[in-house]
Amino acid sequence: MFRIILVEPIYEFNIGMVARAMKNFGFNELYIVNPKSLGEEARKYASHAVDILEKAKIVKTLKEALNDIDLSIATTGVIGGDYNVLRIAMPIQELSKLIKYHGKVAIIFGREDHGLSNEEIALCDILATIPTSKEYPIMNLSHAVTVVLYEITRNQIRIKKYRLAKKNERKLIEKFFTETLKHTKLQEHKMKTSELVFSRILSRSFLTGREAYTLIGCFRKIHDLVISCVSKENHKENLTT
Amino acid sequence: MFRIILVEPIYEFNIGMVARAMKNFGFNELYIVNPKSLGEEARKYASHAVDILEKAKIVKTLKEALNDIDLSIATTGVIGGDYNVLRIAMPIQELSKLIKYHGKVAIIFGREDHGLSNEEIALCDILATIPTSKEYPIMNLSHAVTVVLYEITRNQIRIKKYRLAKKNERKLIEKFFTETLKHTKLQEHKMKTSELVFSRILSRSFLTGREAYTLIGCFRKIHDLVISCVSKENHKENLTT
Repeated sequence: MFRIILVEPIYEFNIGMVARAMKNFGFNELYIVNPKSLGEEARKYASHAVDILEKAKIVKTLKEALNDIDLSIATTGVIGGDYNVLRIAMPIQELSKLIKYHGKVAIIFGREDHGLSNEEIALCDILATIPTSKEYPIMNLSHAVTVVLYEITRNQIRIKKYRLAKKNERKLIEKFFTETLKHTKLQEHKMKTSELVFSRILSRSFLTGREAYTLIGCFRKIHDLVISCVSKENHKENLTT
Repeated sequence: MFRIILVEPIYEFNIGMVARAMKNFGFNELYIVNPKSLGEEARKYASHAVDILEKAKIVKTLKEALNDIDLSIATTGVIGGDYNVLRIAMPIQELSKLIKYHGKVAIIFGREDHGLSNEEIALCDILATIPTSKEYPIMNLSHAVTVVLYEITRNQIRIKKYRLAKKNERKLIEKFFTETLKHTKLQEHKMKTSELVFSRILSRSFLTGREAYTLIGCFRKIHDLVISCVSKENHKENLTT
């Protein structure tokens, strides 16, 4: 199940054209965060996809739109260098792999002028980008949506499907990892980068439910070992002092 | 060399949006057969691709636009049955092969309402179609152009490249993970599965060099903490026995 989320779109014709592209490729769940306006012009450009506009959910924040989502994919036309970990983007060609999984996946598109903020990207699990010409990389919003939907459905050959790991399963692995790492006395800023990188790796690999189960087991074991160690140390120190 | 040909487009905003999509994907040769009008609105929707509109060639007939072309590809949203030979269309996925060849190739898009006539299709060498939902197969003109241009350049356009983590970097992360896990006394068969899953996750996420550096740091720290703990335990045990 795919949900398309538009964050604060400015132009109604883009919203309408997005609805149309969705129907062209067989998608139907649209969430719009805080649209500037949404009326007749959007309906006109939606053409025969007015039904998708009519059942679109309007919400106040991106967080709200991501509430029940297992895997969220932010999109951007502006990608960062090697050292801007948050803005390391994978090409959308990778998204075609998603059809191999079950689960609720959201794809998020930002404003026509400023895209998504760093805070919004941080809310998402993966950052993806459409490979375009360096000379003019910024695509029209509905064009970007169209290409992504085309890419996802491009290889819709029937293949064996796996259950995608749920968000709370991924979060549990991340929790054990982070809690363990805290005891290594890593510097604060490295801690943050490490959490982000680890979380991105889990998302980008399209972890399955079965794999998540295995990794939860591993990281729980490592975590428990470290905790029992550290508490013994503390106990000993308390005895000594 | 690719030429995009629009046959009798009705709406200026579509012409403008086509120019924009062309520039996004690095194409620049646009021919327009007999446009209804072409002015300010087209320029507005072309955004930073006005130059493509300005050098677009306006011609009277499709035949004229195909004059010096080596291979011409008509597009359609309406494909025929097995017996309508003229309208047997190949999916545009096949077009990505075109980048392997030199020569002048034209891709032709019809009117927003009636597409291309049978006579026009007969002038072309190939008929291609974008696989869409049966429920609503007719795409917006500029969307159709965008998807075709994306498909052609899909395996070719230069995108920001990150250094992929080297095999020995990934192996180092795996080594620290495995060595750590050994001390948790996980059962033998679970150990094997865990190593495999962890290794797969790292590979499948297309880990970058920068990310590998961060994860090597984390897993080394966790590893060292566990080792120092365990050796103290052993030392204590040795003293006790």
